Amino acid sequence: MSRQHWDEFYATNSPPTNYEDSQKQIKLFCEKHHHNNQRIVLVTSGGTTVPLEHNTVRFVDNFSGGVRGAASTEYFLKCGYAVIFLHRFKSVEPFTRHFGGQKFLEMLDIDKNEQGTSITVKPEYIKELAPILVSYKTAHKEGRLLCVNFTTLSDYFWLLRAACESLTVFGSNAMLYLAAAVSDFFIPPNQMSTHKISSDAAPSIHLQLVPKLLTPIVSDWLPNAFVVSFKLETDQNILISKARGALTKYKHKLVIGNMLHTRRTAVIFVKPDSSEEVKITPEQAANGVDLEDSIVTKVIAEHSLFIEQEG
Amino acid sequence: MSRQHWDEFYATNSPPTNYEDSQKQIKLFCEKHHHNNQRIVLVTSGGTTVPLEHNTVRFVDNFSGGVRGAASTEYFLKCGYAVIFLHRFKSVEPFTRHFGGQKFLEMLDIDKNEQGTSITVKPEYIKELAPILVSYKTAHKEGRLLCVNFTTLSDYFWLLRAACESLTVFGSNAMLYLAAAVSDFFIPPNQMSTHKISSDAAPSIHLQLVPKLLTPIVSDWLPNAFVVSFKLETDQNILISKARGALTKYKHKLVIGNMLHTRRTAVIFVKPDSSEEVKITPEQAANGVDLEDSIVTKVIAEHSLFIEQEG
Repeated sequence: MSRQHWDEFYATNSPPTNYEDSQKQIKLFCEKHHHNNQRIVLVTSGGTTVPLEHNTVRFVDNFSGGVRGAASTEYFLKCGYAVIFLHRFKSVEPFTRHFGGQKFLEMLDIDKNEQGTSITVKPEYIKELAPILVSYKTAHKEGRLLCVNFTTLSDYFWLLRAACESLTVFGSNAMLYLAAAVSDFFIPPNQMSTHKISSDAAPSIHLQLVPKLLTPIVSDWLPNAFVVSFKLETDQNILISKARGALTKYKHKLVIGNMLHTRRTAVIFVKPDSSEEVKITPEQAANGVDLEDSIVTKVIAEHSLFIEQEG
Repeated sequence: MSRQHWDEFYATNSPPTNYEDSQKQIKLFCEKHHHNNQRIVLVTSGGTTVPLEHNTVRFVDNFSGGVRGAASTEYFLKCGYAVIFLHRFKSVEPFTRHFGGQKFLEMLDIDKNEQGTSITVKPEYIKELAPILVSYKTAHKEGRLLCVNFTTLSDYFWLLRAACESLTVFGSNAMLYLAAAVSDFFIPPNQMSTHKISSDAAPSIHLQLVPKLLTPIVSDWLPNAFVVSFKLETDQNILISKARGALTKYKHKLVIGNMLHTRRTAVIFVKPDSSEEVKITPEQAANGVDLEDSIVTKVIAEHSLFIEQEG
């Protein structure tokens, strides 16, 4: 894949409608936190869509609820990082991820009396909610969390490049934690149907390979940053070789490998010359222990080592 | 499309893992509400996925946030219907749809003192939250809302058939309000890759036509129910002809047509011999007026007329 490939991608795929706003927010956030030795991480999260039509009714999507990115963001915040959370629109978000479905309304009691109406959280939910609410309020009070969203592959490309531009000043204090499930395939705009594909006949969809952004990130955009990518496979036999192949090809420092069916309890840290499993027991997972707590702790240790070596 | 088509679909696509539980819940819900002239509606909502791999990392999806179904459910409940809300897992749900993203945590205040910790809703949010919370509590207290979820096209097929089986006893008091965005195309299991498709080469995806469930629903499963289907298009010129084509083909009573880019403010009720627009102004939409309030009012009037004629 050559430079021409991603240059062509940007030339033929328009930026998202929220592009200028998001770019400005990212820039201001980075300027605000660029002092002393403040560390910063860009967490990408959720799957990208690949539209099949310009007026998009149908699209190819990548499996990802966004739990890895959302949970990791909480632990990075806890450890003092500033976090840009670049996530798929409507994927799970840090803090609120704990209260899906109808749970939030279920937690509330309403009381109407002469003084007016008050709404309170039922006592039995306070123990669970209080620490999450305190962490949420702390992160927001200190302005250490910026949420930016994408939907399509193209949105993701534009916003990721904008983030890299603003992160350069952080040098080795910046980390990219690329947990988003980015499509490997897409349909170029000039080969896309304008309107909803008719359902009168069965279509064939011809996909093209997406240029890999790790190449320009590592070699051009953020050569001094600590870059962590993720690799998801369904076949255990190829996971480590695929992860190591990525390290050789893109020359970054760390790939975190995971299997589709065990991703909540085990990952493997793959470096050019070693690999190491990080896991929790199914019992721990059932009791609410997040694997991301261990992952982030270990990633931060690697980041510290990297900063030391670079400095 | 012949009977053989959907029989073959069920024979070759397995039921979802939650199938037996969901089937039992639907059955009990229907038995509980089958008394006097209680009306019941099955609202389907959100898009179905079409997996590209058995160990699914990638899938084709249909655009739908699920707002139409979730909002309509609230208005059906308000009008006294019992509602089975058959929705895409993690699509928006009735009542909680008003509090997306981080809004729910933003609304809360925490207070720690000698008596312990209490969490309350900030006064400025009470006016908005109170009526929604009251409606939510009323619906749940009366047990008039059952939420069942699907992810894939196949899940949807199995659960929709199970719901139809339990709804037959309601005769013309049952309504199907088919707002889900169901895929027109799929890949049969025997033509699907087992593992994640390799990203070494650009693939072509060959899709097949999905059998239309409206045919067995209207002719076999629920011949006495009031069936409403939806039609979404991106090309205004074909909307009414497509909607009328569906009425001729499936012989149900009403298609609600909508355009992708104006679906929040306008729909068109298409019947065999007439069509009528239902709309709100952009100002009303911006002020929180739901188009679904008007849609559901009109659909219920049509249902009443239908019951009268059938009786």
